[in-house]
Amino acid sequence: MQVSFTPSEIAAIAQPRRTVGATDRIVSGIAALSAAEPGDLTFLSNAKYRAAVATTRASVVLLPADFAGAPGPDQLYLLVDNPSLVLARICARIEQSLWPKPAAGIHPTAAVDPGATVPASATIGPFCVVEAGAVLGERVHLQAQVFVGREARIGDDCWLMPGTVVAAACVLGRRVQLQPGAIIGADGFGYEFVDGRHRKSPQVGRVVVGDDVEIGANSTVDRARFDRTEIGEGTKIDNLVQIGHNVIVGKHCLICSQVGLSGSVVLEDYVAIAGQSGLAGHLTVGKGAKIAAQSGVKDDVPAKTSVWGSPSLPILLEQKLTILRNRLPELFKRVEALEAQLKERQP
Amino acid sequence: MQVSFTPSEIAAIAQPRRTVGATDRIVSGIAALSAAEPGDLTFLSNAKYRAAVATTRASVVLLPADFAGAPGPDQLYLLVDNPSLVLARICARIEQSLWPKPAAGIHPTAAVDPGATVPASATIGPFCVVEAGAVLGERVHLQAQVFVGREARIGDDCWLMPGTVVAAACVLGRRVQLQPGAIIGADGFGYEFVDGRHRKSPQVGRVVVGDDVEIGANSTVDRARFDRTEIGEGTKIDNLVQIGHNVIVGKHCLICSQVGLSGSVVLEDYVAIAGQSGLAGHLTVGKGAKIAAQSGVKDDVPAKTSVWGSPSLPILLEQKLTILRNRLPELFKRVEALEAQLKERQP
Amino acid sequence: MQVSFTPSEIAAIAQPRRTVGATDRIVSGIAALSAAEPGDLTFLSNAKYRAAVATTRASVVLLPADFAGAPGPDQLYLLVDNPSLVLARICARIEQSLWPKPAAGIHPTAAVDPGATVPASATIGPFCVVEAGAVLGERVHLQAQVFVGREARIGDDCWLMPGTVVAAACVLGRRVQLQPGAIIGADGFGYEFVDGRHRKSPQVGRVVVGDDVEIGANSTVDRARFDRTEIGEGTKIDNLVQIGHNVIVGKHCLICSQVGLSGSVVLEDYVAIAGQSGLAGHLTVGKGAKIAAQSGVKDDVPAKTSVWGSPSLPILLEQKLTILRNRLPELFKRVEALEAQLKERQP
Repeated sequence: MQVSFTPSEIAAIAQPRRTVGATDRIVSGIAALSAAEPGDLTFLSNAKYRAAVATTRASVVLLPADFAGAPGPDQLYLLVDNPSLVLARICARIEQSLWPKPAAGIHPTAAVDPGATVPASATIGPFCVVEAGAVLGERVHLQAQVFVGREARIGDDCWLMPGTVVAAACVLGRRVQLQPGAIIGADGFGYEFVDGRHRKSPQVGRVVVGDDVEIGANSTVDRARFDRTEIGEGTKIDNLVQIGHNVIVGKHCLICSQVGLSGSVVLEDYVAIAGQSGLAGHLTVGKGAKIAAQSGVKDDVPAKTSVWGSPSLPILLEQKLTILRNRLPELFKRVEALEAQLKERQP
Repeated sequence: MQVSFTPSEIAAIAQPRRTVGATDRIVSGIAALSAAEPGDLTFLSNAKYRAAVATTRASVVLLPADFAGAPGPDQLYLLVDNPSLVLARICARIEQSLWPKPAAGIHPTAAVDPGATVPASATIGPFCVVEAGAVLGERVHLQAQVFVGREARIGDDCWLMPGTVVAAACVLGRRVQLQPGAIIGADGFGYEFVDGRHRKSPQVGRVVVGDDVEIGANSTVDRARFDRTEIGEGTKIDNLVQIGHNVIVGKHCLICSQVGLSGSVVLEDYVAIAGQSGLAGHLTVGKGAKIAAQSGVKDDVPAKTSVWGSPSLPILLEQKLTILRNRLPELFKRVEALEAQLKERQP
Repeated sequence: MQVSFTPSEIAAIAQPRRTVGATDRIVSGIAALSAAEPGDLTFLSNAKYRAAVATTRASVVLLPADFAGAPGPDQLYLLVDNPSLVLARICARIEQSLWPKPAAGIHPTAAVDPGATVPASATIGPFCVVEAGAVLGERVHLQAQVFVGREARIGDDCWLMPGTVVAAACVLGRRVQLQPGAIIGADGFGYEFVDGRHRKSPQVGRVVVGDDVEIGANSTVDRARFDRTEIGEGTKIDNLVQIGHNVIVGKHCLICSQVGLSGSVVLEDYVAIAGQSGLAGHLTVGKGAKIAAQSGVKDDVPAKTSVWGSPSLPILLEQKLTILRNRLPELFKRVEALEAQLKERQP
């Protein structure tokens, strides 16, 4: 992560609408407005920090095109349409040095079954296991210590980080990224209670993950009891998330850290779930719905609505109830006062 | 998961009390009643879906013995005592193709210490580590990238999936199944605060897991400070569950995903804990008690009772309080009305 | 974990102020007062168990120096300043047999890049990966199946347990302990929503972990978007904890199991967070503040205060509101009674 850009290299990436001021400093770091030092690049992406621009010590500042203000001495303003997107482009350039594209080939320590299909463009790192019948796409990168089970299929350009598992028969689309420790295709949690014991219901379905999905570190997606657990195209899942068996997640959903989806939940497209929320089994969350943090959802959530609380309610109602709960001491006093008044007036 | 059964093969597994109708279709999939297509097997295990039987397109339908109704053309009804159990038997047959019994033997890449005991019937997969003094039972299967520490003991017929860890001195009974990434025997979380620093209390106990236990993906069971952390026979633990040091879990408990048990908790037999609940340290949950989802349990729970909420209460009380909280807006209005009335009548 | 100490060996470790009674028994186990058997060592560290001392069957009992009472026959009391600390010293002795200091050297199966720096005093276990540019300190112990990425730096005397990951460019201080499955440096969860899709914001910062930090099993600490995610010296983190990108954790904090810290949270020194709590992004928790279990923190927490609840409030207020909520049935009845009284007196 050695950052080293000349101001003109930055400008070439940023393609600014206009520039104000100038600096000769090499940019060797990125920092927030208030934390930046000379030699840093900074940016304004949230209007509430606008006042901090005037006092930032950064050498190069990415600003929205309509920003009015003048740089300090030895400071360069780059005025762009979307500072966040430009920053992402700069970071993508840095990323290439952090995670250089590995050379294709199979590391001599990897255990690849002769019955697996591995194209010449794939990179299989040390101590990876690829079982019989598995099929890897072009340019797939198994970084290290990865497990790909029997008959699993990994689409083109997938990147499986260290310690990830894709169990037998599971399928990843193209450009799927598994962060370290993610487990795809563990058994679903299903038992029949017979003669005082929990007898396991075999879990013989699979997991099917769409294109451009990312799954976070140590998250778990269970295989279906039969048929499939599905994660739709473009959905992003954070760390330590649990996706139960037979769940269907739509396209372009966002699921934050430590969320749990019980078995057979259905999320339609563009659903967003904040951290630590849990959803009971067999319910449906409609398109574009939002679930606030730490919610406990027991019922279907209509499309385009927001819910919060445990058990969850429409968010405006939950906010109101939260405020009223905080006023319980006052309410008890008011009731006491009423009781006293009535007693006083007792005929 | 290539499913391919003739209707008569299905019937041979199902052993139906009687059959109605007939089909020649090869069964190549399993699906829910409403999702099934010709060529699928389906089943009725929950009475609330009874109406969907008449319209299912499945070729073979597993039904309870008392089901009244007639199949469509090219459709076979199999009437059985317990459709769920029959389905489980069929899935168990499919499971053999998904997870074929591996050949016994030690993969050439595995690192097995000469001081470990590994019977000829065991299967040690690629990149597994078995340290000195570890003792493996008959037919133990370490699938891949498994770690078994010094002096650990693994009972007959255990199956440790990829990336699992059984740390030093821990003990698994027979037929224990560890889903991928499960960690048995990490250190308990214990410190003494001395001179402004948290000084670690060495954690020198172990974990003892009973027969027929299953532990989910990326779940963690900590070793005891001294003595043992114990998981009783037949207990089933879902993914991402935390079991603290010195916890004693009884027999045949069910612990759902993302539950956390603090140190020294005691669960008696047949306890069931729903997802994302947390239990404070040193408390006891009595035999057969149930804890609803997202509960926060701070006190002992009597046997055969159900609790819910954070902090948790008897479930009927918590349900009542939840309803009354939802009526707070109304209550505030009623108190305001009373105040207005009294003011009006002010003498 | 074979425990075997003579009473005089125990006394030599305990260095008691005085002793009462005597035994010849070899100490072969450690147990709580009520569970101990002859041959066990036990201890009194919490005054509430004082009454159990008289009836314990343990052979050796560690007691506070001011304890008044007489041992049974064949029983030895050791009176010490701090029984917990003495127990920790005894357990540390046991720990050496559980986790003997490994011999230095690189296991023949490890994959260490020639461009990595590994001192002769380090121990690299089987199937570990150390990538180019990584720098390991003296006596570092990578136990087994560990991944250390490009340009990562691991300080002296760190111990990385099986299956841990320290991704590219991340830095650990000295004596850091990673429990099995801990992931340092997965990508932060950051996306820009462009044209109906979540486009990944490259995460090119790193994680910097201070001296004497411990991170629990299967916990995840994300790399910063840019700059750093930081864990301060002496902080202890339990299992299954999520630390988001750009979080700054101070020194000597305690973070219990299943806690989640959203992006850019700041914890000052000596903060303690109980299990399953979640903190929203970009907030600050002041020095010495405490957060009770299952809290949902949405606002800054002032130094030295305690909060509880979801959303969290000052703990005394939350406790009061919890009690008043439990009295809602009574409050509804009192309002009904008032309404009835007023109706009765209707003019």
